[in-house]
Amino acid sequence: MKIVFTFRPPRALQEQLREAFPEETFSYYKSVEEAADLPEAEVIVTFGEDLTAQHIHHCPQLKWIMVASAGMEKMPFEAIEEKDILVTNARGIHKIPMAEFTLGYMLNHVKRFPEMLEFQKEKTWNKKLPIGELAGKRLLVLGTGAIGTEIARLSQAFRMRTAGVNRSGHSNDYFEEIYTMDKLPELLPEADFIVSILPSTDETRFLLKKEHFEAMKQTAAFINIGRGDLLEDAVLLDALSNKEIAHAYLDVFAEEPLPPDHPLWAMNNVTITPHISSVTSNYVPRAMEIFAHNLEVYKGNGSDYENKVDIGKGY
Amino acid sequence: MKIVFTFRPPRALQEQLREAFPEETFSYYKSVEEAADLPEAEVIVTFGEDLTAQHIHHCPQLKWIMVASAGMEKMPFEAIEEKDILVTNARGIHKIPMAEFTLGYMLNHVKRFPEMLEFQKEKTWNKKLPIGELAGKRLLVLGTGAIGTEIARLSQAFRMRTAGVNRSGHSNDYFEEIYTMDKLPELLPEADFIVSILPSTDETRFLLKKEHFEAMKQTAAFINIGRGDLLEDAVLLDALSNKEIAHAYLDVFAEEPLPPDHPLWAMNNVTITPHISSVTSNYVPRAMEIFAHNLEVYKGNGSDYENKVDIGKGY
Repeated sequence: MKIVFTFRPPRALQEQLREAFPEETFSYYKSVEEAADLPEAEVIVTFGEDLTAQHIHHCPQLKWIMVASAGMEKMPFEAIEEKDILVTNARGIHKIPMAEFTLGYMLNHVKRFPEMLEFQKEKTWNKKLPIGELAGKRLLVLGTGAIGTEIARLSQAFRMRTAGVNRSGHSNDYFEEIYTMDKLPELLPEADFIVSILPSTDETRFLLKKEHFEAMKQTAAFINIGRGDLLEDAVLLDALSNKEIAHAYLDVFAEEPLPPDHPLWAMNNVTITPHISSVTSNYVPRAMEIFAHNLEVYKGNGSDYENKVDIGKGY
Repeated sequence: MKIVFTFRPPRALQEQLREAFPEETFSYYKSVEEAADLPEAEVIVTFGEDLTAQHIHHCPQLKWIMVASAGMEKMPFEAIEEKDILVTNARGIHKIPMAEFTLGYMLNHVKRFPEMLEFQKEKTWNKKLPIGELAGKRLLVLGTGAIGTEIARLSQAFRMRTAGVNRSGHSNDYFEEIYTMDKLPELLPEADFIVSILPSTDETRFLLKKEHFEAMKQTAAFINIGRGDLLEDAVLLDALSNKEIAHAYLDVFAEEPLPPDHPLWAMNNVTITPHISSVTSNYVPRAMEIFAHNLEVYKGNGSDYENKVDIGKGY
């Protein structure tokens, strides 16, 4: 069986695959453009933003696409569905880095580490800064999937109260309470941390409005690691200029990279990171574990595929 | 019964005590020097660094000292023991802020937040920084009491491996492994984070030597929230200058405040905080909860004292 990668995993991971599957033919390329034997592929392994309907049509033996990420937005679903191709992805491996990222900034916030760093630069021993705790604080998560649940699990370990909103209001062990999205106005005034992991869909685009920020505590921190189009820039800038909340931790933006002249960069109640909450040195090894598991299943040596994508739903 | 405080808790907490114990007489002073009716006290509530043997001798009705902190180093134990006075303290309330502080810096370390902040100041969108995870990393805790255990509990929630050392080697649920102190040389090469919460005793003073740092991974982070005399300044400075480890997070020092001309301030692989790991706005309310519980017991309405101090052992 011919398995074509449109990226190059580290050599050690290539070795592991070769040892685990000696009878298969793996070829690795830097990009889909360089993948000379793509048309012979039965399996394509990709990071998910390179395949077009054209590629699908020119791979007559293609039966399975493994996407080594969770972003499915650019996949040529129509062509894939037409040819009944299996798609699996690497969703779930984002949850660990993204939850660590979120808890990290929540701790930074209550412990005021950036201000501590300034004192150190000034060689100042200053014990006067009031320092808070996560314990007892209230978390509100928008989007209670794998990532939101991991954030709630860790927040509970920190003795926080956890609430969530999702489409269905369907509940889950790590949230004390889960509501449907329309309950946001009642929930926001209670929350100390509001974390959004919402994807970009017709329902979530520009979901957060001026009145939502006005409903938040002035001491609240807003953390967006989902998608930048959850709210309009103007809504965010107004809320921050008017000090409706204490701080925004933003990893995603309407326009990425955030333009150098954007006013968010210089606001002192904003922390900006370059869409890296899911980045981790463990990413590719974990994606390859999922791939190896699924390759066993594909070969008939296992039961369930991990992370099979429902083409109709697109995730 | 006369209960004299040598500090002033917030008015709301005074109210709560008055309502819970209407039959008792509470008086509150800014300091022990101002406490005019100290000689009539049956109970003294103190932050623990103000009472002398003199005070004890001049309080003939004194039966109980509640220390609203955990530091017992300056208590006049001999006078207390002689008069068979009950001593309780607030140990255990440090564990939440200190563990949050520790996990906060562990996350800062793997997520490289200070560098992210520099990028923001330069308005630079830089996705190139390699970012790590706590998951799978190894924690080694020196001192496995309430604080060390809370750190281990949270570290396990972050999917870390946890080991500890203590005097007895006695084990505990949140540590996968616990050893006696003499096993340090074998344990240090495995650890990604070495956290000391050791108090200052004859056994712990200058316990960490040059060879211990040489045994650590070059990628390891050392976090000291115990006492500064765990190691000599020269040992620490050498280890950091020679890059034996990646970073030191230091909240305690041989001399406090750390003198302005101390070389540690300006080292780029050192983070300095001014002995604040246990500081939290929830501190006094929690100490007062312990006090209220113990006052019920003292009055015969409960069973066990919380945090009764063993005068012989001094903790």
